[in-house]
Amino acid sequence: MTGDREAPRTGLWLVGARGSVATTVMVGTAALRAGLTRTTGLVAELPELAGTGLPEVADLVVGGHDLGTAPLVKRAESLGEGGVLPMRLVPLVHDELEAAEQRLRPGYDAASGEPQGEALARLQGDLESFRDEHGLVRVVVVDVASTEPPVDAAALGDPHSALNDLDTLDAALAAGESPLPASSLYALAAYRAGCAYVSFTPSPGPRLPALEQAAERAGVPWAGSDGKTGETLVKSALAPMFATRALQVRSWASYNMLGGGDGATLADPAAAASKTASKSAGLEAIVGHPVDGPMHIDHVPDLGDWKTAMDHISFEGFLGVRMTMQFTWSGCDSALAAPLVIDLARLIARAHEAGRVGAQSAFGFFFKDPAGTDEHRLSAQWDALVAWCSEL
Amino acid sequence: MTGDREAPRTGLWLVGARGSVATTVMVGTAALRAGLTRTTGLVAELPELAGTGLPEVADLVVGGHDLGTAPLVKRAESLGEGGVLPMRLVPLVHDELEAAEQRLRPGYDAASGEPQGEALARLQGDLESFRDEHGLVRVVVVDVASTEPPVDAAALGDPHSALNDLDTLDAALAAGESPLPASSLYALAAYRAGCAYVSFTPSPGPRLPALEQAAERAGVPWAGSDGKTGETLVKSALAPMFATRALQVRSWASYNMLGGGDGATLADPAAAASKTASKSAGLEAIVGHPVDGPMHIDHVPDLGDWKTAMDHISFEGFLGVRMTMQFTWSGCDSALAAPLVIDLARLIARAHEAGRVGAQSAFGFFFKDPAGTDEHRLSAQWDALVAWCSEL
Amino acid sequence: MTGDREAPRTGLWLVGARGSVATTVMVGTAALRAGLTRTTGLVAELPELAGTGLPEVADLVVGGHDLGTAPLVKRAESLGEGGVLPMRLVPLVHDELEAAEQRLRPGYDAASGEPQGEALARLQGDLESFRDEHGLVRVVVVDVASTEPPVDAAALGDPHSALNDLDTLDAALAAGESPLPASSLYALAAYRAGCAYVSFTPSPGPRLPALEQAAERAGVPWAGSDGKTGETLVKSALAPMFATRALQVRSWASYNMLGGGDGATLADPAAAASKTASKSAGLEAIVGHPVDGPMHIDHVPDLGDWKTAMDHISFEGFLGVRMTMQFTWSGCDSALAAPLVIDLARLIARAHEAGRVGAQSAFGFFFKDPAGTDEHRLSAQWDALVAWCSEL
Amino acid sequence: MTGDREAPRTGLWLVGARGSVATTVMVGTAALRAGLTRTTGLVAELPELAGTGLPEVADLVVGGHDLGTAPLVKRAESLGEGGVLPMRLVPLVHDELEAAEQRLRPGYDAASGEPQGEALARLQGDLESFRDEHGLVRVVVVDVASTEPPVDAAALGDPHSALNDLDTLDAALAAGESPLPASSLYALAAYRAGCAYVSFTPSPGPRLPALEQAAERAGVPWAGSDGKTGETLVKSALAPMFATRALQVRSWASYNMLGGGDGATLADPAAAASKTASKSAGLEAIVGHPVDGPMHIDHVPDLGDWKTAMDHISFEGFLGVRMTMQFTWSGCDSALAAPLVIDLARLIARAHEAGRVGAQSAFGFFFKDPAGTDEHRLSAQWDALVAWCSEL
Repeated sequence: MTGDREAPRTGLWLVGARGSVATTVMVGTAALRAGLTRTTGLVAELPELAGTGLPEVADLVVGGHDLGTAPLVKRAESLGEGGVLPMRLVPLVHDELEAAEQRLRPGYDAASGEPQGEALARLQGDLESFRDEHGLVRVVVVDVASTEPPVDAAALGDPHSALNDLDTLDAALAAGESPLPASSLYALAAYRAGCAYVSFTPSPGPRLPALEQAAERAGVPWAGSDGKTGETLVKSALAPMFATRALQVRSWASYNMLGGGDGATLADPAAAASKTASKSAGLEAIVGHPVDGPMHIDHVPDLGDWKTAMDHISFEGFLGVRMTMQFTWSGCDSALAAPLVIDLARLIARAHEAGRVGAQSAFGFFFKDPAGTDEHRLSAQWDALVAWCSEL
Repeated sequence: MTGDREAPRTGLWLVGARGSVATTVMVGTAALRAGLTRTTGLVAELPELAGTGLPEVADLVVGGHDLGTAPLVKRAESLGEGGVLPMRLVPLVHDELEAAEQRLRPGYDAASGEPQGEALARLQGDLESFRDEHGLVRVVVVDVASTEPPVDAAALGDPHSALNDLDTLDAALAAGESPLPASSLYALAAYRAGCAYVSFTPSPGPRLPALEQAAERAGVPWAGSDGKTGETLVKSALAPMFATRALQVRSWASYNMLGGGDGATLADPAAAASKTASKSAGLEAIVGHPVDGPMHIDHVPDLGDWKTAMDHISFEGFLGVRMTMQFTWSGCDSALAAPLVIDLARLIARAHEAGRVGAQSAFGFFFKDPAGTDEHRLSAQWDALVAWCSEL
Repeated sequence: MTGDREAPRTGLWLVGARGSVATTVMVGTAALRAGLTRTTGLVAELPELAGTGLPEVADLVVGGHDLGTAPLVKRAESLGEGGVLPMRLVPLVHDELEAAEQRLRPGYDAASGEPQGEALARLQGDLESFRDEHGLVRVVVVDVASTEPPVDAAALGDPHSALNDLDTLDAALAAGESPLPASSLYALAAYRAGCAYVSFTPSPGPRLPALEQAAERAGVPWAGSDGKTGETLVKSALAPMFATRALQVRSWASYNMLGGGDGATLADPAAAASKTASKSAGLEAIVGHPVDGPMHIDHVPDLGDWKTAMDHISFEGFLGVRMTMQFTWSGCDSALAAPLVIDLARLIARAHEAGRVGAQSAFGFFFKDPAGTDEHRLSAQWDALVAWCSEL
Repeated sequence: MTGDREAPRTGLWLVGARGSVATTVMVGTAALRAGLTRTTGLVAELPELAGTGLPEVADLVVGGHDLGTAPLVKRAESLGEGGVLPMRLVPLVHDELEAAEQRLRPGYDAASGEPQGEALARLQGDLESFRDEHGLVRVVVVDVASTEPPVDAAALGDPHSALNDLDTLDAALAAGESPLPASSLYALAAYRAGCAYVSFTPSPGPRLPALEQAAERAGVPWAGSDGKTGETLVKSALAPMFATRALQVRSWASYNMLGGGDGATLADPAAAASKTASKSAGLEAIVGHPVDGPMHIDHVPDLGDWKTAMDHISFEGFLGVRMTMQFTWSGCDSALAAPLVIDLARLIARAHEAGRVGAQSAFGFFFKDPAGTDEHRLSAQWDALVAWCSEL
């Protein structure tokens, strides 16, 4: 841009800012700004979504929270060695990564004993400072941190729990209690700072009733959960084929191998429970009946940041004839997730600008467990997203 | 049905009436009528299409043309042995098959020397007699015969050719010439008898300009071509996933193994040319650019009526990262095709009843090479079909 | 045979005699005797093993123990409907199945409270009566019953346990105790009746030290364990390829889906423990180092008697380049197991005739967890089997 | 090495010295010499072959012929970008590549019009100079150039052809004729220079009768043909499993996708004829009967130096039950081939040292179309190789 008026800039604050996805987002936005790469993978750059007033990638400023301290440049080099991004890009975006490094702040560590009321004020302050220091028209927060276990079912079942009622929650925080999962504390900090929020993981985050109330009260939009980047993406494209052809899916076995950070997290059965619940929901909604078949998520460290899914589908056709389909999907987790994070940041910023509040059900296209809708069919989700954009 | 009044009956005339697909249609309609099987595979029985005034399966009367003489009961037993349909059904529908046997007539054999003008009159007469003898409210013709080679490109390029101009064609037939492929002669006979026509094969059939004129002049609807039952079906469900996620498909290799009758036909490169052209069209239309990669159709007799497709897809994501997907589809050709033939018979009969004329583009859901539309995305085709039904 | 001298007949006694494998063995031996089928799947009919004095299939008489009462003919019809064997065979071998039905006896049910000492005498008596009534030259016992859990490690660790010392065991039985897993009780009954024994399952059976002593003392041969019929078979053929090409196997993920009876049994984690231990052993022995990667055995009832394995292998080549291989194996469990049971019966009978005693390590070709040897490479096992036969 | 005496050095002369395989050989030998990589992929480093007096990798000096002029360093960088070898290695072996660059000489180009008699003298001179200048104890020549079409069957059928009789060949060359395929001219030059020869491609090379005579007369050993690195390797490991289990292979479909240089060459049907013939031979030899099923080799440029094979096997078991297996092999062609080239160079050098003459049938382990033997089973080939080494 050569004029004297600068475009307004939007802040993208990443929770889990030193992780593989976040680092790929930072390398990618820098590379796009410098014209070093194409827009492959960026949904918001497709003709159907263009011209709908989304902030430009070049006008994003990236910051974030993280518990670790590994330098971004080192993380980027490591991703380059693993084939997640082209090694040649790393030196070319070195200065941008160094600048982003300065915009990272320590995250909230439940193990530290920091009372959540204090942590909330600190995280909120980080977001407000980020907005002020960089003159950002608004800031959106996207959670790309490790998956947390689901919250206790008993607590969720109690209408007076701090998880279910915002006033109770605020009272608990004021009393020095720490009732929230970390992901929800980040969401609350975002809302208190007037920021839109996107949950790209299956962690509870914004899905607790108290958090839904907080977003409403703050008048900000949010979206989630659990980015749909691999096997579930394929399922949501294939399952409608069986449904509309009246072919009866008899069993669908889902075997997932992950090498990277989330693979290790998901080796913990408690954390995996979030993930498998989120992965299973869609299939039955699409075909209209329960479907038998195992689902496993296995940690195979040797795969690095790559993930491979092997699925086996047994189905029945006319006159009861049994047939099968198998597929193998070998994808790079961060390369699949990072562009969607950028898309979602731009979309939720536009939703915020347009005054939308609460769960953005039109963004279900991006999620395994879409908030605000039961629609899991990929093409119907795409139609809803395009319609949302063209309405604005 | 509430009274003593019988529902009006519709004729389903199959070209290639002793083939595997046709035999499965006959066993299937008889089994459905007798309550011996479920409606799995029948698209027109799905809730979205129900209640739109289609003729009931129980009200279909099946007849047809064929060059061979193998008894239907023998064909059905052979399909039972090959696992294409449950052997237990064959004795239960034996009488229905014997009755259908009586409704079959000799087809047109180009090698016989019968002038096409005479054959036309004969085939047309067969259709009219079928309608009259059985008191059918209307007859629809569906081509499920072996695939023919494409017509000569030079003939198609000449606007004065009998293939391109109906008056020229009629004059040629009157002069004792035989310019048409057999599939087109059947279509012409249907139109002259006032029947709607469906081309379930990639043969030229109704796609020649002179035939399009004939359907218009006769005021009847038609649909085609080439039933989408296997690999191309999967492609049309999967390719939009890559397109809407902005993932660049770099190559898509398509390996098809067929054992049955059409497998042998397609071992002839000339006939295969029809098929591979029809299979390739959709992918590029969906992703919006040419896609590299081999497509083979191989005859593997040991597979019997089963067909297996193995596809390998290489695609590129964010920052140029290369990823892959493979799938294997093992389906029973006739079990996949037969219910669609029944669906199409009911739909084109309803179109005829509703006064529709010419290519029915809303039926593209069923075809590899849909007439009257460039839409190849399965879900968009589904939406168009549902809309068409709800409009009526 | 037309001479007046009948060939000596050998008894094949099946533990689990009404199961799918056993029923397939009975249909198969009857069909072979009647010339109704070919010898496909029968290893002992290959030229390399022919002429080594094994009893003929036609000279086998089949009997067995089972806890259930489902008639063999019904079981055979059910297998025919599931595609495990050709339905046309069932009526043709009906009389043979009825005759075999008369040779079945009630098995030992640990839940019944029958003291094992009494059960031992009863089972032994059944074997001796079978041999006497049918004038059999010898009887071999093959265990094809459901998989049992492994025995308690603590008991195995105690040298004075009844599992580890035959005299202690005999004293315990005499004292009315019931210390053995059922599979081992069957083995002990076989030895006491002077019969050779084959364990085709991963159950403890003959592998307990006390049982090894019992076989020695009885002077009979035995073989086991756990028939190698599917994924592990493929592994034992493929893994040596990686080893001899100096390609480093980095991970090998093994996903198994089973529909049939053993699938349900293996849904019990305790029983599955026997199976996964037995499946894992070979790979590391072949490649010479531990190999990462998940192994799952899932019960998918819709698959019936079929089992599908999907494996993903990641390996490293020259200069550290990473490559992958996947395979899918779709096999019919009983059709794969039954001919091996027949082979083993003939081989162990020959071993018995030749005076061999104890674990027959040369039969490792047939087993996932071969007794008496660490050799898991399929081709080396084949060479050992051929050598054993030619030595006799 | 214990003293100041240097080990004798062996020359490895590569025909096609600037190709992907040759470049990987040069990078690899340099990296091994410098201790920068492990011996993964090197068969001759396995314990079974160690200590049999092969020349050390560190004692190989590499030179070669090529028609092109692309600098080796550029080729290596390009392979690094394609993931064929680690990019980090290229600068570390830069000096070695520059040195090797000086040892390359222009190859023979049939299109140049150079009479083959003159070319023979030139190529032979290059080999002798290489040996003399570097003080090499011997030189072995390995052909890794592009695949040539098979020679004309008519010429091969004529016993007086120059291809079939060495004296006729020499007379033709003396008369200024050029009757040989280029690959055979290189082999002849090797023999005339007293060098052993290995054909790693399916080109005619040393397989013509006149060439076999030339090797005999020169008293040198040779080996070939067509390195077994991918789908055929897997076949030769898997097919014996079916054979020894008496499972009847009914069809085996072989689909190969290649991206790199040889992929483009093989898009020429004439050249592909050499390859498919060489790939098909083994399967039938192993299972003992003809096997139906297509074999395709397709050029898919987007795959780069990678090759993917997708195979579908249909087989029959006991009582005629049909089962299937599929596999997908995704390998890096040069990473698989290069270590075998190094292995073969060391082995053939040892054969030469030991006075062996003619086709070395014990090296069949490495080849799709092994000279001097019909043994295609991988494990039997391995046993033969180990035996050969231990005999020396």
